[in-house]
Amino acid sequence: MRIARFSIDGNVAFGAVEGDGGDPAGLVLDIIRGIPYTDFELSGTKVPLSKVRLLPPVLPNKVVAIGRNYAEHAAELGNEVPEVPVAFFKPTTSVIGSGDAIEYPSFSNDVHYEAELAVVIGRLCREVPRERVKDVIFGYTCANDVTARDTQRTEKQWARAKGFDTSCPLGPWVETALDPSDLTIQCTVNGEQRQLGRTSEMIRSIEDLVVHITEAMTLLPGDVILTGTPAGVGPLSVGDEVAVSIEGIGTLTNRVIKRG
Amino acid sequence: MRIARFSIDGNVAFGAVEGDGGDPAGLVLDIIRGIPYTDFELSGTKVPLSKVRLLPPVLPNKVVAIGRNYAEHAAELGNEVPEVPVAFFKPTTSVIGSGDAIEYPSFSNDVHYEAELAVVIGRLCREVPRERVKDVIFGYTCANDVTARDTQRTEKQWARAKGFDTSCPLGPWVETALDPSDLTIQCTVNGEQRQLGRTSEMIRSIEDLVVHITEAMTLLPGDVILTGTPAGVGPLSVGDEVAVSIEGIGTLTNRVIKRG
Repeated sequence: MRIARFSIDGNVAFGAVEGDGGDPAGLVLDIIRGIPYTDFELSGTKVPLSKVRLLPPVLPNKVVAIGRNYAEHAAELGNEVPEVPVAFFKPTTSVIGSGDAIEYPSFSNDVHYEAELAVVIGRLCREVPRERVKDVIFGYTCANDVTARDTQRTEKQWARAKGFDTSCPLGPWVETALDPSDLTIQCTVNGEQRQLGRTSEMIRSIEDLVVHITEAMTLLPGDVILTGTPAGVGPLSVGDEVAVSIEGIGTLTNRVIKRG
Repeated sequence: MRIARFSIDGNVAFGAVEGDGGDPAGLVLDIIRGIPYTDFELSGTKVPLSKVRLLPPVLPNKVVAIGRNYAEHAAELGNEVPEVPVAFFKPTTSVIGSGDAIEYPSFSNDVHYEAELAVVIGRLCREVPRERVKDVIFGYTCANDVTARDTQRTEKQWARAKGFDTSCPLGPWVETALDPSDLTIQCTVNGEQRQLGRTSEMIRSIEDLVVHITEAMTLLPGDVILTGTPAGVGPLSVGDEVAVSIEGIGTLTNRVIKRG
């Protein structure tokens, strides 16, 4: 099931996306009663997707991101594959949805896209054993780990380089029924393909990452794990439209604007 | 005014602390009506501090911490004073209050205390000009930036080393009327002094830090900035009682336990 979060006439709701993803004009949302992480039911009240504003599909308490989890991407930036996963946080104030604008930050001249598979957590968990990882995952969405590459080089910790406002597009919705182990992941800028990888190329699997993160910290329903980007990262300019597409999920699209 | 957050009989409230800080047994809380960041009034209903459980004095959306902001501390770990502030996040799941337990994480054998002055933000803000910084600050509290030093050495980004559960004690309350520019900050372990510094030794001032952080990201009411630790950091063991005291604020006390 694809679960979106949206606003219409000033109200915010979750809805199940119905229809063929190939034709966005034909999609409708069946409004959900309750919170999708727990028991919920479909209301039967439907609105066309074209009539709503999509919001980030989750409101995470925290976003834990993983760097250098695809060997070719580590190499393209001159980095070794790390012995342990490189884990960092993106703040909730960086999260935007599909269709929202990425605001080019004032302190950078080299902002890059990074297409990533995002894991959405469904229940409070810590110290999750490998064999229980599937039980704590609610679903998957597309993410763009937007990065000020110049700032990343000059500031040893990445709070500003990867945590500025609008640097964490998530969406368009969460797919709850998906095998994430071998999906095509791609990024286009103004319709031109820039990244093309497969999730099977991840150095650490989703199971590895959930075990590693929850060894240290509790994850809450709606928390998000970004699983790293394949090779092909590159710069964005004001005016660009960047799109992250993942097989079986959909496409997350954002335009880059000057910070107002 | 000192503003505490506490629970009593299962209810959570904010209260103004009345009485002499030198005698905790004599302190009472005047329960606040409303949210302390905006207009509020004292209810006149008072409860003795000894009858409540103190909670973290704020529920931050994010905690932005600054590393290596005291020259002697940078030197003691063999680090240069950074050209730009080292900014990183501690997640909300790491925040605990005074009296709560620090749980020694399973993946580390070298957990350190780091006494720090914490700045509590009072209003939504971004791109704050230097001369407006005082307007966005709600007050100040004590913090302990508890750090798995061994993990910090082996993992290049510090999400696990400084973000594990219970690694961000804050409290005991927020002091809203305080000049933070030259305060004694100290840390004791089992009553023995381990750190003693003055906030006047910070390399970057609070104004510098707020400007630097909000150049990149929006801060929200209740967000917290940790301003770095003076020299003298060292290990904690299970059973230790660690206390951070800052002149004009009070003492944040936590016991270290084995993670259950």
